[in-house]
Amino acid sequence: MNLNTEKIAMIHGSGGAATGELIREVFAAAFHNEILDAMEDAALLPDGLFAEVGGTGRITVTTDSLVVDPIEFHGGDIGRLAVCGTVNDLLMRGSIPKYLTSAWVLETGARIEDLRRVVVSFAEAAAEAGVQVVAGDTKVVEGTGGILVNTTGIGVVPAGVTISSSGARPGDRIIVSGTLGDHHAAILSARMSIDNDIRSDVAPLTEMCRRISSYPIHSMRDVTRGGLGTVLKELSAASGNVFRIYEKAIPVRESVRRFCGLLGLDPVYMGNEGKAVAIVPPSCADEVLEIVRNCPYGEDAAIIGEVMEPTDDRQVAGGLYLETEIGGIRELDVMQGEGLPRIC
Amino acid sequence: MNLNTEKIAMIHGSGGAATGELIREVFAAAFHNEILDAMEDAALLPDGLFAEVGGTGRITVTTDSLVVDPIEFHGGDIGRLAVCGTVNDLLMRGSIPKYLTSAWVLETGARIEDLRRVVVSFAEAAAEAGVQVVAGDTKVVEGTGGILVNTTGIGVVPAGVTISSSGARPGDRIIVSGTLGDHHAAILSARMSIDNDIRSDVAPLTEMCRRISSYPIHSMRDVTRGGLGTVLKELSAASGNVFRIYEKAIPVRESVRRFCGLLGLDPVYMGNEGKAVAIVPPSCADEVLEIVRNCPYGEDAAIIGEVMEPTDDRQVAGGLYLETEIGGIRELDVMQGEGLPRIC
Repeated sequence: MNLNTEKIAMIHGSGGAATGELIREVFAAAFHNEILDAMEDAALLPDGLFAEVGGTGRITVTTDSLVVDPIEFHGGDIGRLAVCGTVNDLLMRGSIPKYLTSAWVLETGARIEDLRRVVVSFAEAAAEAGVQVVAGDTKVVEGTGGILVNTTGIGVVPAGVTISSSGARPGDRIIVSGTLGDHHAAILSARMSIDNDIRSDVAPLTEMCRRISSYPIHSMRDVTRGGLGTVLKELSAASGNVFRIYEKAIPVRESVRRFCGLLGLDPVYMGNEGKAVAIVPPSCADEVLEIVRNCPYGEDAAIIGEVMEPTDDRQVAGGLYLETEIGGIRELDVMQGEGLPRIC
Repeated sequence: MNLNTEKIAMIHGSGGAATGELIREVFAAAFHNEILDAMEDAALLPDGLFAEVGGTGRITVTTDSLVVDPIEFHGGDIGRLAVCGTVNDLLMRGSIPKYLTSAWVLETGARIEDLRRVVVSFAEAAAEAGVQVVAGDTKVVEGTGGILVNTTGIGVVPAGVTISSSGARPGDRIIVSGTLGDHHAAILSARMSIDNDIRSDVAPLTEMCRRISSYPIHSMRDVTRGGLGTVLKELSAASGNVFRIYEKAIPVRESVRRFCGLLGLDPVYMGNEGKAVAIVPPSCADEVLEIVRNCPYGEDAAIIGEVMEPTDDRQVAGGLYLETEIGGIRELDVMQGEGLPRIC
């Protein structure tokens, strides 16, 4: 792929391999610094940020532009999606979300009634997530009634937090906080005007993360664009260990499973907006699972796999392996195709 | 205007009266809290933000989505514009810009070569302004090759800073840091394919603000969408005092003046991207002016007016008055029309 001569295509927004290449080749190449190079979901600002004004705090920052189509769907809308995506990114670094910005780009023809509804939804989700909106912006462009929003989140980091992408160690268990594919299936249903009972899982994981924050979580990541496969492959590669997951342990709602069967979709690569994976030491895995199951949005949580040393010669260091329902082993990579465009 | 039934039109993005109404009616109504209600360019986060993690810093946050068309023009591009707009907003609160986010929405068909150029320009402007990019995002939508970007900025506030929108006091002088209308005229020239020597003034005012930071500035504001008239009317209204400015003292580049004459444009309502107004006590006005004139981007600075008590019965408290070149007095309001769409 030669980025100098190619044009942007939908695949560059997929969150998969082509997005990664674009980010490396264009953005990371231009901006790179220690903070960005860490490639975490939320930027952890260095100690000493406030030294010149007398303070010592550490804060996290993350940003997300939402282009979901349609802007409203079963279970959520672009406003709730913006808040949850950003808040969950802050939570995955072990920080406490505090503040959001809210910057809207509105196309001509957008209905103010619709806008008001998604803005109210944004505000309600912010209240649920425990964050305050502290800055905003509005722009208008020619178009056909579309609505886009960008949200930047700021969080604070409690002392002693060491969660990172590379934290997984052999023996760790892999917990997923609930069923996979719900958001992807809800967006696709709305776009195809299929009337079913599938609802997006879009939700802030603030309360869940608060309740498990006293446990020594090694890695955490929300399962969004690119799905579980992409997220786990990124974590296994970062840790240099082997991840093995079990297909039969992966929770998928029955209605979503049927939907995927009809359309030939794989829940392992479908986007969610209220699900996280946590990599935890075996000593506390059952306890963490139990807590997550008793949290809002965590009732279907499950242990779906484990972290191993790469001893078996069919396994590569940093690899992700799926044991299928019929007992075969399949190596998984990050999502290669487009995924579902404009899923968030 | 009934926001429940009307659709979004270009005028809602003007930065003038209709934008203000939309923000009040939709966004402020849904989100309002002490920080947002202050309606400053950058959000000043409260003391105690870091109390729970042991720190005491105060930070500022601002966000801006850029939809400028075309994305490149004489003197700048969307990348430099994003950085400067955001950095200048942080500076206007008396804070020191530290960090930026950078979130791009790319239309299909956008040329990666063009993207790379404006991203590099973003990075160069960030380096000039003394800020680090700490988080990013990329999304793709169907379209015709357009590029949008959102930037959120974070700054730190030195102890003792009291700059605010309402700080102007009778006797204060009004300083503008240079010529008006350059950015607006450059964008319009590019859009009309007029070949002239007008260049956008897009620039970060970091160094200028650093050099005048030891003076007791009462108010500062960058002169962007809506122009000098809109900015000064907002400051006069917030302070409750009368502002009087002198048309003959307002610096306008000769080429821009000719351009405005041809098209019937008024530099007082044209957008800039590297200009600020400062409201300063009379005791140090000449000294501050001299410093600004010796700063990068400040060589054409001028004292253009003063703050008065509303003693004259032709003057209303909070009013903004222009003494025209022929000696008449005209009351100015915030910009009422559309201004130039997609100027930033």
